[in-house]
Amino acid sequence: MELSALTRFIFFALCCLLLLFAFSWLQFQIPSETTFFSTRRSKENPRPLTASSLPTQDHSSDNPQHPLDPLSIFEIHTARSILFSHPLFSSSPSSLAIHSISLDEPDKSVVLSWSESSPLPPRRASSVVRFRGESFSFSIDLSSRSLTPRPIPHSGFPAMTIEDMTASTFAPFSDPAFNASIHDRGVRTQDVACLPSHPAGLTVLVDMDTKQVIEISDEGRDIPIPKSDGTDYRFEAAGKNVFPKPLKPISIEQPEGPSFEVLGRHRVRWAGWDFHLKADARAGLIISAAGVVDPDTRKRREVLYKGFTSELFVPYMDPTDAWYFKTYMDAGEYGFGLQAMPLVPLNDCPRNAYYMDGVFVASDGRPYVRSNMICVYESYGGDIGWRHSECPITGMEIREARPKVTLVARMAASVANYDYIVDWEFQTDGLIRVKVTLVARMAASVANYDYIVDWEFQTDGLIRVKVGLSGILMVKGASYTHVNQFQPKQDTFGTLLSENVLGVIHDHYMTFHLDLDVDGANNSFVKVHLSRQETDHKATPRRSYLKATRHVARTEKDARIKLKLYDPYEFHVINADKTTRVGNPVGYKVVPAGTAASLLDPADPPQLRGAFTNNQIWVTPRNEGEEWAGGLFVYQSRGEDTLAVWTERDRPIENKDIVLWYTLGFHHIPCQEDFPIMPTVSSSFDLKPVNFFERNPILGSPPNLERDLPVCAAAASA
Amino acid sequence: MELSALTRFIFFALCCLLLLFAFSWLQFQIPSETTFFSTRRSKENPRPLTASSLPTQDHSSDNPQHPLDPLSIFEIHTARSILFSHPLFSSSPSSLAIHSISLDEPDKSVVLSWSESSPLPPRRASSVVRFRGESFSFSIDLSSRSLTPRPIPHSGFPAMTIEDMTASTFAPFSDPAFNASIHDRGVRTQDVACLPSHPAGLTVLVDMDTKQVIEISDEGRDIPIPKSDGTDYRFEAAGKNVFPKPLKPISIEQPEGPSFEVLGRHRVRWAGWDFHLKADARAGLIISAAGVVDPDTRKRREVLYKGFTSELFVPYMDPTDAWYFKTYMDAGEYGFGLQAMPLVPLNDCPRNAYYMDGVFVASDGRPYVRSNMICVYESYGGDIGWRHSECPITGMEIREARPKVTLVARMAASVANYDYIVDWEFQTDGLIRVKVTLVARMAASVANYDYIVDWEFQTDGLIRVKVGLSGILMVKGASYTHVNQFQPKQDTFGTLLSENVLGVIHDHYMTFHLDLDVDGANNSFVKVHLSRQETDHKATPRRSYLKATRHVARTEKDARIKLKLYDPYEFHVINADKTTRVGNPVGYKVVPAGTAASLLDPADPPQLRGAFTNNQIWVTPRNEGEEWAGGLFVYQSRGEDTLAVWTERDRPIENKDIVLWYTLGFHHIPCQEDFPIMPTVSSSFDLKPVNFFERNPILGSPPNLERDLPVCAAAASA
Repeated sequence: MELSALTRFIFFALCCLLLLFAFSWLQFQIPSETTFFSTRRSKENPRPLTASSLPTQDHSSDNPQHPLDPLSIFEIHTARSILFSHPLFSSSPSSLAIHSISLDEPDKSVVLSWSESSPLPPRRASSVVRFRGESFSFSIDLSSRSLTPRPIPHSGFPAMTIEDMTASTFAPFSDPAFNASIHDRGVRTQDVACLPSHPAGLTVLVDMDTKQVIEISDEGRDIPIPKSDGTDYRFEAAGKNVFPKPLKPISIEQPEGPSFEVLGRHRVRWAGWDFHLKADARAGLIISAAGVVDPDTRKRREVLYKGFTSELFVPYMDPTDAWYFKTYMDAGEYGFGLQAMPLVPLNDCPRNAYYMDGVFVASDGRPYVRSNMICVYESYGGDIGWRHSECPITGMEIREARPKVTLVARMAASVANYDYIVDWEFQTDGLIRVKVTLVARMAASVANYDYIVDWEFQTDGLIRVKVGLSGILMVKGASYTHVNQFQPKQDTFGTLLSENVLGVIHDHYMTFHLDLDVDGANNSFVKVHLSRQETDHKATPRRSYLKATRHVARTEKDARIKLKLYDPYEFHVINADKTTRVGNPVGYKVVPAGTAASLLDPADPPQLRGAFTNNQIWVTPRNEGEEWAGGLFVYQSRGEDTLAVWTERDRPIENKDIVLWYTLGFHHIPCQEDFPIMPTVSSSFDLKPVNFFERNPILGSPPNLERDLPVCAAAASA
Repeated sequence: MELSALTRFIFFALCCLLLLFAFSWLQFQIPSETTFFSTRRSKENPRPLTASSLPTQDHSSDNPQHPLDPLSIFEIHTARSILFSHPLFSSSPSSLAIHSISLDEPDKSVVLSWSESSPLPPRRASSVVRFRGESFSFSIDLSSRSLTPRPIPHSGFPAMTIEDMTASTFAPFSDPAFNASIHDRGVRTQDVACLPSHPAGLTVLVDMDTKQVIEISDEGRDIPIPKSDGTDYRFEAAGKNVFPKPLKPISIEQPEGPSFEVLGRHRVRWAGWDFHLKADARAGLIISAAGVVDPDTRKRREVLYKGFTSELFVPYMDPTDAWYFKTYMDAGEYGFGLQAMPLVPLNDCPRNAYYMDGVFVASDGRPYVRSNMICVYESYGGDIGWRHSECPITGMEIREARPKVTLVARMAASVANYDYIVDWEFQTDGLIRVKVTLVARMAASVANYDYIVDWEFQTDGLIRVKVGLSGILMVKGASYTHVNQFQPKQDTFGTLLSENVLGVIHDHYMTFHLDLDVDGANNSFVKVHLSRQETDHKATPRRSYLKATRHVARTEKDARIKLKLYDPYEFHVINADKTTRVGNPVGYKVVPAGTAASLLDPADPPQLRGAFTNNQIWVTPRNEGEEWAGGLFVYQSRGEDTLAVWTERDRPIENKDIVLWYTLGFHHIPCQEDFPIMPTVSSSFDLKPVNFFERNPILGSPPNLERDLPVCAAAASA
């Protein structure tokens, strides 16, 4: 038993601001108590079409139809029964906590050689469990009901279960000191609520095994209660207070329906693309076996065997007591997929979107469904796929332009970081449609970034991975109500966003695992260096030009890349065995866009754990044990199992089955516009064909024609 | 007379590939001669709705309605008559060449204090002319008919006129050596045509005054004729050869019409935004006097007094004989607006777009209309404006998401670089719908990038400037048909794109003039530095964090910025006299995304002329004579009048009326997918409110509701 480690295992930072809920609420916007919240005005402000109004899919009889399909409910039950009946655990099944059960994918060669007419390869599950203070990892053969142990990392703990989190939110209530602290604020329980973004500086340390409060840090006792004006972001709260007036309806319309098709539940086909798409508890969304049809040969060509969010790293830039540990790794600590909530039709995704559910596993091993977790839709926003006009003096009236239509696979995770922060929500009853109970509420409302991850497939072979950030900033209670109260040279660690509310500076990194298979598994990583060449001044009036030089990376250390604006490269993944007609190696390149790099001290404990952000690009030989950039167990890990450590072995990567890792980063100095909910900020990177096709593959795509476009009427008049 | 300068004034590089047109064409795709091109199959492949099918606007009686409205046709005629009747020129009016006549804008203070009930301030024109080998610049008072000379740069020439370009394309035909060279290729004139992207290495030097051929360089004589397979990009050429099959119709629909309004012809209002928009011969598109309504105060606040593309710089990376001079500056050399062609409805811009014309001036001073040069539309592509979900353990079923709708003002310029390159097009007659004549054709088809410039206004106060590149690569004839023919270590200056076709490496830079007026004209530029702080190890387990430090730039040299990923800054333009409620200075920040930096030798002649790309950001005190980053006259200039030179004066910029200059760059190593027309590549930068609003200004925006969305039917069934 590692009780002392467990004792510090989780911090709950109760950073909520306690306020007179009804008072401030009513004062803010609604003159009459009876009208606040939505029930009384549902006629004026109807709810948008919600996820629950979509038809619910029944998964109870799902059968896997593809080797990569996630475990079915039946298979999860099977895996669970194998675990619980295993001699290791059967003596005390109630002590067994299931941290994950998911598909243990078959070998790549098996998947790629499988065809729909063949039976599925043997189904296996992968599982991480904790039992009496120890962690275990298994591969479970569902047919033979056998269980094979797998090595586990030397440090760290598996991801917290939802049940862990929920249970521990109740723990402080049974602690007299905690209750006293609330009472000392002079607020009756039934009168108060935590509203989003109202921190109070009350930090609670809980033992995760016993759920007992170990320590309370109540440094925020003297921090005034921030005002709540304008912080309710719900549509009901806005009332008629909307300015400027709402825009007229605008919509992506496809009266003949979308052009993509979904085979089975997971295989998506569109415009020559064909890929497998599924929800995953840890990665969120996984794209597999993506290939594209070459318009010249009309044959399928492999592009990306597997792409997913491998890890996140979100270090906050405040080294003080209640904040220094806020350096989240959301995939490995909480499950990026587990935090993905149902998408809101018409708003999170446009009309004609296809919604896909996730089937996840609770800590008792039972499956549950997260509905509408992924959407797939075709996007057209008015952009141009390609165009060309002739100028008038040519005498040719050529005006060719093609609309840019893309296919988006989207998920949105509301990452609450809630094991570190607990926000207690006390709701008055009766007037709110949302479920109203006195509930221990995790910090979802205090620090709850919404990450939107889009995998966008283009008709020209390009894949764009786009990350959007929205949601609620993590804020800190402060005694200041005005910037002029800051002391000269004082380090406030952030921006004063509102009275008594500081937005703390932080970074976001999202690291993607990209197992590119360009026309086959064996690929090489080529750095194409653009550098200044000085000329022979006698031969040309030019003194310089840029020359491209190709460097094939032999080993992992050749492929650790820090981007530099003044020392530019292109980064190609090529198949050295295959060339175009004129002899260029076929390839895809990774094209960064706006990004940020971690500047923390490499020896800082958080940066050791987040060392996979030490470079923007890494390349490793494919290894089934190396899927998670921060390691299998990231909680309290010491960084022994990260991408940075793996690549120290400096393995050969030339003409091998390789994985490219790309990290997309954001520095975030909060500003007042980010409060209480920030407008989406996004960036992206591209996987782009480079001499993969013989020529522009969408040259033959047709233009939009008036006769093909829909005829639409306003809904009211229809 | 500077005849020797003029002799080298313009190079015409005839880089077209001569080929047996009918032969290759027929061989490629169409078995029967009678069916090639579109006339015979117009029923199957109808033309898209074209610009010419839009109602044509009559500008003959336009009157200016706003101080910034461009010169009307009547005003252009007035300015022209003042010029031609001036004693300087009246002796020989036929020697007077008008290079530009455009609005000489009133002072900023006059514009901002003007209201619709006031009369327009006095109208003036600005004009650049050439007369007997000399350049002149004037301000012309249209009321008093007086003409005030303005200083002109020490070096360089004004932009070429369309008439110059057209006339000189005919010059080589009268040259016996040129005609002999065509004949020597064994091709009869009536049998050949230049198709896009087929270079031949025939360079012609023409005297721009006499239009005589001075010199012919025929080094490409031995280069084989590239194949044309698959290079015709016209929809008619694609025939039924489209793969994958076309997508089903998809469209942005607004059955109640768009939400923006256009007052007069140029003032656009949308979602709180209010700005002036016009076409400009040199800049392309100018946004002026952009302000936004604050949702809290409901009052207009100034944001951007003037934003436009100031200059482009496109250096090619081949120092050899026929290529070293290809270092284009498209705004100052050719007029970025003059090269903007009519946009294609439904394809360049979606339904419900508003189209705006440009009124430009020919070299004889007469006005002409470039129709549909700018479009304005609302974009919705399925993106999310903001969102927030609660996680299920909170017990609150909050799922709030808002669609992201933006307003786009777009132009697309087809930059032919055609003064340097001439491509002769010989078309067979009768079978093509486009105008078919034996016409001297400029290089529009050989090197004709299409630049798409979008100014995108968001509801949250953000302005995104997006540059897209499409169109036709500049390519070079070569003897190679396969990469394996390259010599080891040989510098090919590019990529072999097809047999005998090399795509030469080059850069694109577009420099924007951004006269931000954040809540008034007097602003300061603040660099917010994010840098690592080492901690006191005793006080915290953290060793480091990032700290933000603000540096106000005092003078121009403080504000010359090279971006560095590992030394990050935010760049704010603030109003030091105005703060938010809690005391933050109100501001906007410029947020770079993907970009590239020029790596040429700073002393290289092209880089001296393009020295405005030496930094990504510059800030200058506003000066009416400093609008064009590469100088007023860029042809053959020696770089004495660039942003780099102006800022050497190191003028104070703190709390002044300042202009921020941002340069967006692209390195382009061509790949086969870019041939013959490249799919659009784009990047952008943002002007983003930073503590400008008290809080998220779109918190109250409503969601999409099913009942508001249109009801649409397929066109065929309607």
